Amino acid sequence: MKKYKALFHVDEKEKIMLVLKNMANLLNDLGEDEVEVALVGNSEGIALMYQSSEYKEKVEALYKKGISFAACANTMKEKKLNKEDLLEFAYIVPSGVGEIVKKQAQGYFYIRP
Amino acid sequence: MKKYKALFHVDEKEKIMLVLKNMANLLNDLGEDEVEVALVGNSEGIALMYQSSEYKEKVEALYKKGISFAACANTMKEKKLNKEDLLEFAYIVPSGVGEIVKKQAQGYFYIRP
Amino acid sequence: MKKYKALFHVDEKEKIMLVLKNMANLLNDLGEDEVEVALVGNSEGIALMYQSSEYKEKVEALYKKGISFAACANTMKEKKLNKEDLLEFAYIVPSGVGEIVKKQAQGYFYIRP
Repeated sequence: MKKYKALFHVDEKEKIMLVLKNMANLLNDLGEDEVEVALVGNSEGIALMYQSSEYKEKVEALYKKGISFAACANTMKEKKLNKEDLLEFAYIVPSGVGEIVKKQAQGYFYIRP
Repeated sequence: MKKYKALFHVDEKEKIMLVLKNMANLLNDLGEDEVEVALVGNSEGIALMYQSSEYKEKVEALYKKGISFAACANTMKEKKLNKEDLLEFAYIVPSGVGEIVKKQAQGYFYIRP
Repeated sequence: MKKYKALFHVDEKEKIMLVLKNMANLLNDLGEDEVEVALVGNSEGIALMYQSSEYKEKVEALYKKGISFAACANTMKEKKLNKEDLLEFAYIVPSGVGEIVKKQAQGYFYIRP
């Protein structure tokens, strides 16, 4: 079992690049075998998981290193997004904030860049 | 006893509408009987609790669903606000950040939209 | 041993003044003997620890009250900053987000103004 669990929350478009950098830095610092990393994107932060976006390559690289990506269904409904609009490995959660609560209940430490 | 406790923190005016939506979504997702929700407003976020504001109806509806609303006394002093300027059910805490610490010590999970 | 531990995270220049005020308010509210306070600065938030800055006096006063200040080495590298560019009591951590995770694992409650 990994030593740490960390949960990143992004709900601003302006923070997407920073969050991606933060997640890569966290894996480098603590070690991929020592930290389980998850991301929750809601509101404008959901753009991090768009199928067509400038972030795609970076996000895929992080996914391959074991980071999970959760998209808020409420945001998807509001923005009229389909599952196909998001990267195929993004998983949809009923609400971003609900996922944040559940993940913290599982021992994830919250980080909000 | 409810299964989860969640604490929202707002200190930016631009985030007030999002926080209100987040809180309603959280109750819908986890269920009102399963999650205890509290909000702390300080700095510009205190406007969420203004007696005269565009948010009033939404905030009252959330209060009726059991969400509590704490206002930072330091912010009130700085902005020369009286108790009467805030919604009657808002409760005043010595400092917003102190309340955030105490609530986390009581098992609330922090969410900062 | 102190009753509470609190960790402030700053990564926006616009939030530096608020964070400094928040930290002073927290000490006043909970009492210096009751709360251990730490700050992690990364991205644009690292400016809080600049040797030459408008915040210097305020930061030094908080340091004297026992608050610790951690600067992100990744940010320093990116901004070509040397140890000498920062206040002498700032300590450098491999990554700001790694420090945030470690501190929470030590029981610090996270606050993101």
